Amino acid sequence: MVNTSISSVQVIKKSQGIACSQSDLLAVEEPLEIRLGFGGLIDRKEKSISVTMRTPGQDLELAIGFLFTEGIINATHQVLSVRHCEHVKPEEHGNVIRVELQPEVEFDLSKLDRHFYTTSSCGVCGKTSIEAVHTTCGIILTANKVSENIIHQSPDKLREAQRVFEYTGGLHAAGLFSIDTGNLLLMREDVGRHNAVDKLIGALLNDENIKVEQTFILVSGRASFELVQKVVMAKIPIMAAVGAPSSLAADLAGKTGLTLLGFVRNESFNIYCGNERIEN
Amino acid sequence: MVNTSISSVQVIKKSQGIACSQSDLLAVEEPLEIRLGFGGLIDRKEKSISVTMRTPGQDLELAIGFLFTEGIINATHQVLSVRHCEHVKPEEHGNVIRVELQPEVEFDLSKLDRHFYTTSSCGVCGKTSIEAVHTTCGIILTANKVSENIIHQSPDKLREAQRVFEYTGGLHAAGLFSIDTGNLLLMREDVGRHNAVDKLIGALLNDENIKVEQTFILVSGRASFELVQKVVMAKIPIMAAVGAPSSLAADLAGKTGLTLLGFVRNESFNIYCGNERIEN
Repeated sequence: MVNTSISSVQVIKKSQGIACSQSDLLAVEEPLEIRLGFGGLIDRKEKSISVTMRTPGQDLELAIGFLFTEGIINATHQVLSVRHCEHVKPEEHGNVIRVELQPEVEFDLSKLDRHFYTTSSCGVCGKTSIEAVHTTCGIILTANKVSENIIHQSPDKLREAQRVFEYTGGLHAAGLFSIDTGNLLLMREDVGRHNAVDKLIGALLNDENIKVEQTFILVSGRASFELVQKVVMAKIPIMAAVGAPSSLAADLAGKTGLTLLGFVRNESFNIYCGNERIEN
Repeated sequence: MVNTSISSVQVIKKSQGIACSQSDLLAVEEPLEIRLGFGGLIDRKEKSISVTMRTPGQDLELAIGFLFTEGIINATHQVLSVRHCEHVKPEEHGNVIRVELQPEVEFDLSKLDRHFYTTSSCGVCGKTSIEAVHTTCGIILTANKVSENIIHQSPDKLREAQRVFEYTGGLHAAGLFSIDTGNLLLMREDVGRHNAVDKLIGALLNDENIKVEQTFILVSGRASFELVQKVVMAKIPIMAAVGAPSSLAADLAGKTGLTLLGFVRNESFNIYCGNERIEN
């Protein structure tokens, strides 16, 4: 396996008006597909049952744990074998797991379908998907510059607006800010961070007064691949996150021309790409 | 709409050996199903395209934002109407959205299937699903008591073990602890919190030396419905979270007999249910 759980990138750290280049470690985020082999020896079937964005490592445990917690197996002796598929496309290497159930294990496919739901994603291969996003958008993100200070002030403004979070400690928030004035234009909250961003973008689409190229978005948590994908689709040119980005999030930002900032807190942030849109 | 984004519960707050009862606000988590109506006037089709766990509120924006960021629509004028379905089961009321696309909007169903992936879930209705979990498990969670101090010490032990998180700031962790000694028995990390828990449970299943009824699990983030579901499936009797639980997570814990602790940090925590397993 070549997959590792950490990847190193070069970032620009901005703090108190000073910029310095330093290396930063990102958690790797890659898709894992779980395929299930089941049925008797004669009518053996295979079905892809899950694709999840995960950090590589302990993939066999992840697959077994997933099957167990989803009620597909109820003991490990029901599993004949679990291994990484070797006959996959190069870019999928290490990212596809095949679990063979014992022939006698009864498995109801329709039950499976009912218990799983769809969520937004990239498909199995990060690379293919990055291409897809790029193609779908077909845009070059443009924007005026935003001053470092406006970025620094944004987390406090988001928190101020986020009364529910304050009370419950349980909600992710996404805020859309003017790059000129630093004013908070839109704010949405949700238990799911992708939902907070979808709500915000839904509101943005209905608001003809907001010029998207004059805005940046701040998310209260971390920047995953999925969130970057949504922000790029909405043509928002700058994304700031209070937490860290994942490796795939930073990759996608780089390839689509998005300015991506992480660890935006305590008057400091890291620039993962798109430095040209940030000024002192 | 009766759905609100906050719900109030009574909790026991433990801090410095003192227990007091107080009310606490939880972010509401409920499933939202998005149904899409598309095709010409003659061969009109409907498809359920997404079920996501979300906080009620701005559901129409969420649906529009989701369709847009997933590339299903590229402008709001492609939408004929968007509304909550009224002819649904009582427990689904307010939780099903129907979006009608304009008849001329071309929509490729196969493209949709490729761009969405499955993840673990509860199905559309929280209530049905809570029943399902209960039935599937068919267990009464049993456990000896755990002392308050062992709980207080667990976040530091998890962080100590979590070197990657320290470096990247980007990983969720799940740790399994002995309720007798407070020792960390297993620890797993991932960009996805459900993956961290699945990895840990996968490892637990392979470890014959660990008696699950003598353990508790600590998660580094918040306790969602999905995480509680996984923990109950694994028969772990006590779940502690550094962050807040959602309303549905607390409901499920209560109905399955799980002890659920939230805000486990700074020598303090809240007990949402299962107080009988916590001793001074």
